[in-house]
Amino acid sequence: MNGAQSLIRTLVDAGVDVCFSNPGTSEMHFVAALDSVPEMRGVLGLFEGGVTGAADGYARIADKPAATLLHLGPGLGNGLANLHNARRANSPIVNIVGDHATYHKKYDAPLESDIDALAGWLKGWVKRSETVAEVAVDAAAAVAAAQDAPGRIATLILPADASWGEGGETSSPVTPRAPKKVDEATVKAVADILKSGESVAVLIGGRACREEGLRAVSRISAATGAKSFVETFPSRLERGAGVPAIDRLGYLAEQVTYQLDGIKHLVIAGTRTPVSFFAYPGKPSDLVPEGAKVHVLAEVDEDMVGALTDLAELVAAGTEPVLQAESRPALPTGDLTPQNWVDVIGATLPENAIIADEANTSGLLLPTATAGAPRHDVLTLTGGAIGYGIPVATGAAVAAPDRPVLNLQSDGSALYTISTLWTQAHENLNVTTVILNNRAYAILRLELQRVGAEGSGPKAKALLDLSGPDMDFVKIAEGLGVPATRATTAEELAEQLAAAYAEPGPHLIDAIIPPLF
Amino acid sequence: MNGAQSLIRTLVDAGVDVCFSNPGTSEMHFVAALDSVPEMRGVLGLFEGGVTGAADGYARIADKPAATLLHLGPGLGNGLANLHNARRANSPIVNIVGDHATYHKKYDAPLESDIDALAGWLKGWVKRSETVAEVAVDAAAAVAAAQDAPGRIATLILPADASWGEGGETSSPVTPRAPKKVDEATVKAVADILKSGESVAVLIGGRACREEGLRAVSRISAATGAKSFVETFPSRLERGAGVPAIDRLGYLAEQVTYQLDGIKHLVIAGTRTPVSFFAYPGKPSDLVPEGAKVHVLAEVDEDMVGALTDLAELVAAGTEPVLQAESRPALPTGDLTPQNWVDVIGATLPENAIIADEANTSGLLLPTATAGAPRHDVLTLTGGAIGYGIPVATGAAVAAPDRPVLNLQSDGSALYTISTLWTQAHENLNVTTVILNNRAYAILRLELQRVGAEGSGPKAKALLDLSGPDMDFVKIAEGLGVPATRATTAEELAEQLAAAYAEPGPHLIDAIIPPLF
Repeated sequence: MNGAQSLIRTLVDAGVDVCFSNPGTSEMHFVAALDSVPEMRGVLGLFEGGVTGAADGYARIADKPAATLLHLGPGLGNGLANLHNARRANSPIVNIVGDHATYHKKYDAPLESDIDALAGWLKGWVKRSETVAEVAVDAAAAVAAAQDAPGRIATLILPADASWGEGGETSSPVTPRAPKKVDEATVKAVADILKSGESVAVLIGGRACREEGLRAVSRISAATGAKSFVETFPSRLERGAGVPAIDRLGYLAEQVTYQLDGIKHLVIAGTRTPVSFFAYPGKPSDLVPEGAKVHVLAEVDEDMVGALTDLAELVAAGTEPVLQAESRPALPTGDLTPQNWVDVIGATLPENAIIADEANTSGLLLPTATAGAPRHDVLTLTGGAIGYGIPVATGAAVAAPDRPVLNLQSDGSALYTISTLWTQAHENLNVTTVILNNRAYAILRLELQRVGAEGSGPKAKALLDLSGPDMDFVKIAEGLGVPATRATTAEELAEQLAAAYAEPGPHLIDAIIPPLF
Repeated sequence: MNGAQSLIRTLVDAGVDVCFSNPGTSEMHFVAALDSVPEMRGVLGLFEGGVTGAADGYARIADKPAATLLHLGPGLGNGLANLHNARRANSPIVNIVGDHATYHKKYDAPLESDIDALAGWLKGWVKRSETVAEVAVDAAAAVAAAQDAPGRIATLILPADASWGEGGETSSPVTPRAPKKVDEATVKAVADILKSGESVAVLIGGRACREEGLRAVSRISAATGAKSFVETFPSRLERGAGVPAIDRLGYLAEQVTYQLDGIKHLVIAGTRTPVSFFAYPGKPSDLVPEGAKVHVLAEVDEDMVGALTDLAELVAAGTEPVLQAESRPALPTGDLTPQNWVDVIGATLPENAIIADEANTSGLLLPTATAGAPRHDVLTLTGGAIGYGIPVATGAAVAAPDRPVLNLQSDGSALYTISTLWTQAHENLNVTTVILNNRAYAILRLELQRVGAEGSGPKAKALLDLSGPDMDFVKIAEGLGVPATRATTAEELAEQLAAAYAEPGPHLIDAIIPPLF
């Protein structure tokens, strides 16, 4: 077999059987080899940011990596922003980046560039396979590296001659590094803090945001009175009826300051201490309240769920978690507003949904409206690089074909990776996209005020305005093969959501909602 | 004034008065400062690849840099592919990349990343302004660095506190490094080769592809019988009636081998020796014919036009250049084909047009069809990173508002930066986009054969297929605010082109053309 065949066979043997792909000439042997390994599914994306974002969404739902197939340095470059988000989500991903044949690189052909430097930017695992013999060994190592706790980006650079050369052999799967167990003394010390009677908040992230971790935290809070919070941008948060409802820390520093007001101890498990998303003149970057002491129960690469469960046994034995009751908002009526659209979502959310949330400013009221809806997963914008929603929803739908995926998508962010809608149509994925069309970079209007930028005149305002011309997302979606409708009232949105959920395949709803700011 | 104000004022004083922008929170003081410097025009892009590609197109036509405004590492990441093309075009560009405030970086907030590493990938000029006082000095240096011969990418990383801090002062323009003059001995040595009677080819690139250089080369060929060629992907080629017609070297190695067959000497001016775009099993990478000797008349950072003119005086005194006669193809009729659509372009091209050519496989016959059309400039895909056409056309139209811009755009490549159509509408730019809609990555079908990839089955073919669903570029364009029509016959294409050229503002024509392969 050639290098490409050994690579794909090794990936499949290690459990990686989806490859989100945007290939070019240097990847043609990989493409040709797909037919020799029937277990590998190739999913075509029309832009690399869609490919890498899909791999992120897939990883968050499948709990294992997909591969990506990218075309040299510019292809990886186009994929970097969503790989940045994936890095912040600790999503395991295996990038296969084609490169020129080893002997061709010295000629500095037009597409030549320092791929290793770009891959290094992701601070994960990077390896270049210089020979056919290395390819499968490196591939097995890449899959393991991607899954080393807590998960990371592994990038395998594949020269064309290592791909097309004969003499490849498959390589056996390698066991990734499991999360480290937290020692008893650490758990005991945190238990003592919780029993001290002083004001404590517990902040969780990573795997602790799934049901088992949430139940442990809920028990701890119920038994000790400690406040508990989920990190601001969890990679995947389980919530809804029957799951403990733990609030997320706010995006704005002012919200966090309010949420953590008065605490003396901050216990963190599977996350880091809260910091301001951006710096603002005269405002703090570190959001740990002054005088509060930080206690690390579990680092991000440790077994945070086990540690929280052990901690619950010490401080909350016999205490049950507080489960969210089923409760939906009433269906609102009349024109859509920043306030009422979230109630339509909460009132209609189907069972077992996945929400890919890139609603940004439009979604400030969403958590309340969906708190008592049927249980669901929420995926969030972990790295702040906008344009993540459509791709992540796409990958989530590939990972969970039987679950409805709802992508709540601000208009400004949608345009970065809009072509990914075509992949949803091409693969007939069950994704319902709701464009929150406020015709502005509304978050920047807010941020322009918050950074204290004075003298904002018409030129500044024009740079945050997406009207003139207004975008018509119905036409854009239809042009990319996704059926679409427009909603201007709550009733229309509810009706169109019901229709979209009922019919297989992708749908888009262009929801016209005035900006909050 | 604050740092941002000092930056913009310094840019304008140095001649940089257009800023293609996709800002975020860390750039809000820059945005606010725009109103304090009326000479600076901010042009909003909805995706960074559109912003950087527009800056490339602007530079190629304006012969001076525009600025870009990008949001931290992910924003620069999204812009890298078209900056790669700009690097290969030697286009001068000044990137302003916002970063977190200096004191905020240590908190590793979600958008934190190693911006310097990404900027370094472009192999141009990179500087981080750590204080307000540095900002204007660095900005003046950046504008000069971008224009150092032959032109390059300069990236200024701007921490938010260096932008918002007070105490900034403007800085005077700095003179860039001019092209080095080629010494007489070098010119004389090449003249001797040309007079030797042995078979010579002259290959030109860079500024030599403008009229003055083309006239010199044409005289040299006419007087000495030397073959002459333009590099395969010139950043800007002047051609058409009244300009000497010098063929470009082909994209395929086989074409180049044919073009250079039998030569004993290859003289290069402002370009490098030809290499294969990709490596192919068993085929050469270096396309200089075996036994041929290479003579460098002018390096890319030297005055290649001056050297060619001096050379022409030595070998072709009294010889006139051979100018292309005016000659248009007849207007074809019937269904559009890969063969006839180029004749429609040639038959209808308006005076003084700029063609942004990303026609790829569909455009193989274009040079012949437009050779005798009214004089025009052709901009090409210098770096091979697809998705360049729509942005480059946009920037070219900003640089030359009075010239018609024609973007010949393959469907596959269009999707990478499609949102840039909105900027054309927002700015009412005179761009006519013709989508060459063959519903396939046709070039990859060809490449799949050329790399010798065996056993291509249905999965491989599916990854190169853009049908299912077919894309409707009329709807996509209208959704982004650009009026659009569909052409399936030559008559329709001709009629729609005439209408588009006649009416100000952008237009798109979705031309349905079967694939060549």
